[in-house]
Amino acid sequence: MFFKVKTTEEVLSLIGRFSPVDRESVPLDEAFGRVLCQDIASPENLPGFPRTTVDGYAVRARDSFGATENLPALLEIAGEVKMGEVPSVTVGAGKAVRISTGGMLPQGADSVVMIEYCHRLDEGTLEISRAVSPQENVIQPDDDFKVGDLVLGKGRRLRAQDVGVMAGLGVTDAEVYRVPKVAIISTGDEVIPIDRKPGPGQVRDINTYTLSAFCEQESAVPIFIGLCRDRFDDLLAMVKKGLDVADTVWVSGGSSVGTRDLTLKVLESLQDVELLVHGISISPGKPTIIGRIGHRALFGLPGHVASAMVVAEIFLRPFLSRLSGEAEKKRHNLVRARLARNVESASGRDDFIRVRLVKQGDEWAAEPIFGKSGLISTLVEADGLLRVDRNTEGLYQGDMVEVMVFDR
Amino acid sequence: MFFKVKTTEEVLSLIGRFSPVDRESVPLDEAFGRVLCQDIASPENLPGFPRTTVDGYAVRARDSFGATENLPALLEIAGEVKMGEVPSVTVGAGKAVRISTGGMLPQGADSVVMIEYCHRLDEGTLEISRAVSPQENVIQPDDDFKVGDLVLGKGRRLRAQDVGVMAGLGVTDAEVYRVPKVAIISTGDEVIPIDRKPGPGQVRDINTYTLSAFCEQESAVPIFIGLCRDRFDDLLAMVKKGLDVADTVWVSGGSSVGTRDLTLKVLESLQDVELLVHGISISPGKPTIIGRIGHRALFGLPGHVASAMVVAEIFLRPFLSRLSGEAEKKRHNLVRARLARNVESASGRDDFIRVRLVKQGDEWAAEPIFGKSGLISTLVEADGLLRVDRNTEGLYQGDMVEVMVFDR
Repeated sequence: MFFKVKTTEEVLSLIGRFSPVDRESVPLDEAFGRVLCQDIASPENLPGFPRTTVDGYAVRARDSFGATENLPALLEIAGEVKMGEVPSVTVGAGKAVRISTGGMLPQGADSVVMIEYCHRLDEGTLEISRAVSPQENVIQPDDDFKVGDLVLGKGRRLRAQDVGVMAGLGVTDAEVYRVPKVAIISTGDEVIPIDRKPGPGQVRDINTYTLSAFCEQESAVPIFIGLCRDRFDDLLAMVKKGLDVADTVWVSGGSSVGTRDLTLKVLESLQDVELLVHGISISPGKPTIIGRIGHRALFGLPGHVASAMVVAEIFLRPFLSRLSGEAEKKRHNLVRARLARNVESASGRDDFIRVRLVKQGDEWAAEPIFGKSGLISTLVEADGLLRVDRNTEGLYQGDMVEVMVFDR
Repeated sequence: MFFKVKTTEEVLSLIGRFSPVDRESVPLDEAFGRVLCQDIASPENLPGFPRTTVDGYAVRARDSFGATENLPALLEIAGEVKMGEVPSVTVGAGKAVRISTGGMLPQGADSVVMIEYCHRLDEGTLEISRAVSPQENVIQPDDDFKVGDLVLGKGRRLRAQDVGVMAGLGVTDAEVYRVPKVAIISTGDEVIPIDRKPGPGQVRDINTYTLSAFCEQESAVPIFIGLCRDRFDDLLAMVKKGLDVADTVWVSGGSSVGTRDLTLKVLESLQDVELLVHGISISPGKPTIIGRIGHRALFGLPGHVASAMVVAEIFLRPFLSRLSGEAEKKRHNLVRARLARNVESASGRDDFIRVRLVKQGDEWAAEPIFGKSGLISTLVEADGLLRVDRNTEGLYQGDMVEVMVFDR
C-alpha cells in the first residue's frame, strides 16, 4: 500500500477533525486549568450596587467644585459607611460621609474624594483640597457586568483570575470538558522496565515516563497500559484495552525490522478504521503513524525519545488541545530569539532543532544544540525547538527566529 | 511606628531571604513539575553499549571507502542484529549485518550504513552506494552520560523530558522539595461565601478562589482557612491555624477603616515576628504587608482582586518559587511587544498596567486595557501585565516593551 508522506500542515489539519471529549460539571475550586464547554453569561449585575473604588469621603460632586489646595472646600461629616451594609446615612448638600474601598455609595452622593485630599479639621468638619466630577471613583451597579453579558467564552482554559470572576458571579460549578485520557503503550523487544538493570542491547522504558509527564503538562490523564514485546497479538490486545479505557492510544517504539509496521497492522485489523498519516515530512519524527478507529485516534510514535518529543510538541500538543475542547489560543510559548549559528537543513522536510536560550542584553540568543541526534542528553539541555521550514535550506546566524519553548 | 514604603526590588530581595521547604522522595511517575533537591549524577554509562542511531547495515567503515552511486561496494550479508540482544554475529572484512535503530553494534563493525544507501541484490549480497567514516551513525557506551556526569541540577523543576532521562538512568524515585502549602484567609465584613446571594453592599469571596487557583498554577497547595469578619480575635485564630497547617499564610482584604491594620496587629501579637514590608511603591497593590513569623512569611494582600493579582504575579510568584527550592529560572513568560498607546504613569511608583496581546504581522502589539481599575472584568480581558518603571513618567506608543504573560 502506497502512502504519501504528509506535511506538517496537512497533519495538523487532519488532527483538527477529531472532536472534543464529553462534558462534566465540577465544583469551582476544581475548575482551574479546565476548559469551559459553554459560554458563561453574567447571571446578575456586578457589583450590583454603586461602589467606591477608593478610600475617602462620599460627596455630591458639585459641593467640591472649585476646591484646591489653596482654597479648600469645607464639608460637614455626616457619618460613615460600614462595609457590607446599606448606608444608614444620606449625603445632603454640603455633607461628606467616610467610605472605604468597596463600600456602597450612600444615597445622595455621586462621587468620592480620595482620602489623600481630605483633611479632618475636627469631629464634624472636613476640608477637601481637590474637586471631583460626578461618578469619579465610583462604579455603577452594572459597570463590571450586566445581566446577560458574555463573561467567558466556550473553549476558554480557565486561568486564576477567570476562576475568580466566576466566584464573583456566584458560579459555584463550572461546566467543562472532561479531562482527556491517554492510553500509553511502549513497545520494543529491547525495552525493559525502569527498575531493572539493562543487559547489553537493552534500554529502559523512557517513553512511558516522558509521554506521561507530557500528558500532565497538557492537562491530560496518562494511563499506562503496558510494555509490549514486538508481537502482533500482544500489541493488539493492549491497543484494544487502551481503546476501552482512554480517548486516544499512543504506541511508541517498534523500530526493529518488520515491527515498524506492527502498529499499522494492528490498526488495520480493527473495525471502522482509517489510516490518516503514514510518515510526516519532518526530522526527527518522520516514521509517525496516525489512524482513526471509530472516533478515536491512534498514534504510532517513533521509539527514540528525542523524536517522540518532537512529535509530541508539534502534533500531540494541538491534538490534546483539540480533545480538551480548547478554543484556538494565542501561542505565548513562542519566544523570538536571534540565532547564534548557521543551521543547515535538507529541503523537502521541516527540521526541528533543539536550542538553548541565552539572554543577551535585551534579547534572547538561540544556540542550536549539536551532537548526535540520538543522544537523549541533548533534550535536557534544550529550552525549546526551532523549526527550519522545508522550503528553506537553512537559517543564518543573526536571523530572528521563533523558538517553541518547552513547558517547564 | 513609621515604616517606609519599599520598592519592588527591595521587596523581591526580602522575599529571597526565606528558605525552601523540606524534602521528600516521590516515585518517578509523580515527579513531573516537582523541584529536585539534589543534583542527579549519572549512576551508570548511557546507553551502556555501542548503539546505532539509524536503520541500516553494520559494517567496517574501511569496506565502504570509495563507494558511490555509480561505483557501489559489494558486501556479504552475514546476518541480523536482534533488538535487545547481544549480536550473535561478528562483522569480518567484507561483511554487513542488518541492524535497526537502537540495536547493539556487533563485534567487528565500527559504523552503520543507512538503509537508504543499501540495496539487497540477493539473500547474501548487499550493494552500498555511499561510504561511511568510522563511528558514523554509532553512539558509544558513554556518549549520552558517563558514570558520575551531572545529569540534572538541584533546583531544577522537572519537565517531561527530564523525567524521561531519569527513567533512562533507572532513577525510580526522585528526591524533591515538598510542595509548599499556602493557608488562605479572606477578610472583610462585606465578603460572603460564593453560594450566597449578596445583599446591597456585599460581595462574594473572589480572592479565595483566585489565590487558590494561583497556587495551583504555581504548583503549591492552597488550604482554605476561612472567611473572616474584620475582628482581631477571629483573624488571630485563623492566622494561628494557618501557621499550624501551612508554610505561609496569605490574608487578603481588610480594607475598611481601621481594619486595614488588623493584619498588622495580628502579626505583632505573635511571637518571634518581624515586619518586613508595610506598603510597596507600586500601583495597584500598594497596601501590601509582609511579615516574618519564625521562618514563615505572612502576606497581607489588598482586598481588591485586581490589586491582589498584581501582587501575586510580581511577588508571590517568586516567593513560591523560592519556597519550592527552584533555582533561578529563565523567565520565558516575558513577551516582547509593541505598545499600542501612550501610557502615563506617576513617577515614584511602579505601575502595572493590564494589557491585551494582539498579533500584528511578526510581532505582538500590547494594548493597554483602560477602564476603571476597580473593575474585575478588565482581568479576564488581560493577557498580562506591563510594568511602567517608577523612574519614567510613562511609555510611548510604538515603544518595545516586555509583557509578563499570565499563565493560562
